[in-house]
Amino acid sequence: MTLKPAVNDPQGLAIKDGLHMLGYPEVEDVRAGKYMQLDVRGEQQSDVETRVAEMCETLLANTVIESYSFSVRRADDPDEGRAQS
Amino acid sequence: MTLKPAVNDPQGLAIKDGLHMLGYPEVEDVRAGKYMQLDVRGEQQSDVETRVAEMCETLLANTVIESYSFSVRRADDPDEGRAQS
Repeated sequence: MTLKPAVNDPQGLAIKDGLHMLGYPEVEDVRAGKYMQLDVRGEQQSDVETRVAEMCETLLANTVIESYSFSVRRADDPDEGRAQS
Repeated sequence: MTLKPAVNDPQGLAIKDGLHMLGYPEVEDVRAGKYMQLDVRGEQQSDVETRVAEMCETLLANTVIESYSFSVRRADDPDEGRAQS
């Protein structure tokens, strides 16, 4: 989850200032957000994607101010399937 | 950034409980972490990767309790290069 571009991000600004003070002037912008790893039981990847999108909408993201993206990967598959919203 | 597996994650547990109460019993585990998007000036992707790894070690991640991964992508390139640490 990241704050939508129009939303102020004071945490990101503070991180950018900290990086500048530590000697990284090449950092032009920082947006802070949240990251979650969920272990979800399920057979069909498409079903899991539908359920996870619902979870994002109802609990995980505040869709008024945040956008989100997620990927669903089988626990036994090293390749990464990707779904975005 | 995610908490290392051995570190307690009360935020992740609370999210898991919330999802169970909302009707998502298939969620077996949740790990909460942080996500950041940085816009960084630079010519060579390998140089930027070196610098960003330094930023993670010195400011962005608490490497005592957190692990991190990042990917560097050219602003004009829709494909994603990936570097992990």
